[in-house]
Amino acid sequence: PHVPYSPLRYPVEKMLERSQEFYALMNQRRTVRFISPEPVPRDVIDNVIRTAGTAPSGAHTEPWTFVVISDPETKHQIRLIVEEEEEVNYRQRMGDKWVRDLAKIRTNWIKEYLDVAPYLILIFKQTYGILPNGKKKTHYYNEISVSISCGILLAALQNVGLVTVTSTPLNCGPQLRLLLKRPANEKLLMLLPVGYPSSDAMVPDFRRKPLEDIVLHI
Amino acid sequence: PHVPYSPLRYPVEKMLERSQEFYALMNQRRTVRFISPEPVPRDVIDNVIRTAGTAPSGAHTEPWTFVVISDPETKHQIRLIVEEEEEVNYRQRMGDKWVRDLAKIRTNWIKEYLDVAPYLILIFKQTYGILPNGKKKTHYYNEISVSISCGILLAALQNVGLVTVTSTPLNCGPQLRLLLKRPANEKLLMLLPVGYPSSDAMVPDFRRKPLEDIVLHI
Ligand SMILES: Cc1cc2nc3c(=O)[nH]c(=O)nc-3n(C[C@H](O)[C@H](O)[C@H](O)COP(=O)(O)O)c2cc1C
Ligand SMILES: Cc1cc2nc3c(=O)[nH]c(=O)nc-3n(C[C@H](O)[C@H](O)[C@H](O)COP(=O)(O)O)c2cc1C
Repeated sequence: PHVPYSPLRYPVEKMLERSQEFYALMNQRRTVRFISPEPVPRDVIDNVIRTAGTAPSGAHTEPWTFVVISDPETKHQIRLIVEEEEEVNYRQRMGDKWVRDLAKIRTNWIKEYLDVAPYLILIFKQTYGILPNGKKKTHYYNEISVSISCGILLAALQNVGLVTVTSTPLNCGPQLRLLLKRPANEKLLMLLPVGYPSSDAMVPDFRRKPLEDIVLHI
Repeated sequence: PHVPYSPLRYPVEKMLERSQEFYALMNQRRTVRFISPEPVPRDVIDNVIRTAGTAPSGAHTEPWTFVVISDPETKHQIRLIVEEEEEVNYRQRMGDKWVRDLAKIRTNWIKEYLDVAPYLILIFKQTYGILPNGKKKTHYYNEISVSISCGILLAALQNVGLVTVTSTPLNCGPQLRLLLKRPANEKLLMLLPVGYPSSDAMVPDFRRKPLEDIVLHI
């Protein structure tokens, strides 16, 4: 069954103002690799995840699972797995060029924030679903859908003043899936440490491309 | 060079309130396939795209190009290409199962909104970049980065009361790339018709998964 859709409509002046304000808010977002151990209310995290769950998805499959870790022991296990793989990534798998491209960000395989951040959010994509009759249900475009959902999650974090490090840990997926006892249809897509920025947080002094470099009007 | 990062910090009560409000806003988003021809100010669209351009990206490559079409003739060309390919998709390429999965949404290959919507936004992922010396620059995780950016774009549209149809037109990329004269490193990822919903817009009567079905706390 279909239902009528008639959302709130803003006058043109108001639309312009809202579009500017939201841009200003989102333009302050940065990837912050120095996270404070201060606690963050779990209800805020739950609302952020509810918001991520409003994303569109191919054929409305909603192919996402958000695993939120606050247990210190589990966070530490995750850190050990990620640092071990990342050391191999940096030393061998990524190649000189990739490592050089990352030099300006000054990242390496030491990830203290995995212990320190009050929450780690691990986002799994469900590559297929299971129907009530036990058969597999195809999840069209699951990686794109879950990445869109992650974009909305990042907007929700920014909206409440929390920071994260968007990351796709190379080669850590299978071990983390086993650690967290996720089923075989789930594959790790993102690992997001979440918290307040630490008081002495630093970020690379990047510029973003100006509008004219990313848009073309026809 | 690195610089200090000290964003606005909200009291806990305020964070909770903001997280609820943003969830309520985003939860009203729906994919709307009935778009009004009424004009939308171009400045609003530009701000929405500026907002999408604040997304994180692998090694800060910003691998996105947003092509915004308002020219009626170009919109019609796009419609012809998409409808021709979509008819083949529905009749042959997608298979019975996929078509059945879409039945509840009542979509088919006729896409009037491609003529009617005041804007079509075509989002291209840059699969590699070109350095000043002419060499190729790898764009790590370009599809994930551009999909995250699309998620932020959808949030920005929702924030101003505009609607779209998130879509990844199967097999139309090469023809649309040629029509829009985009370079060989750019591949079409999404096509978003954008406008106000038409006054008689209908949407499938879906529910979203409740929080407990998408989150796990450890
Ligand atoms: C990657 C992706 C591809 C999609 N492709 C199409 C499409 O080709 N045609 C269409 O009408 N809707 C498409 N959709 C929209 C979904 O059908 C829609 O998000 C889903 O049914 C949930 O409805 P909602 O967005 O109203 O919550 C797509 C969504 C995603 C995320
Ligand atoms: C798909 C993806 C993967 C990323 N992987 C990492 C990572 O492994 N480690 C890291 O420190 N940052 C990672 N980043 C963050 C980018 O380095 C960052 O977004 C970019 O440098 C731009 O900086 P900004 O987010 O502050 O605007 C990743 C971002 C994306 C979108």
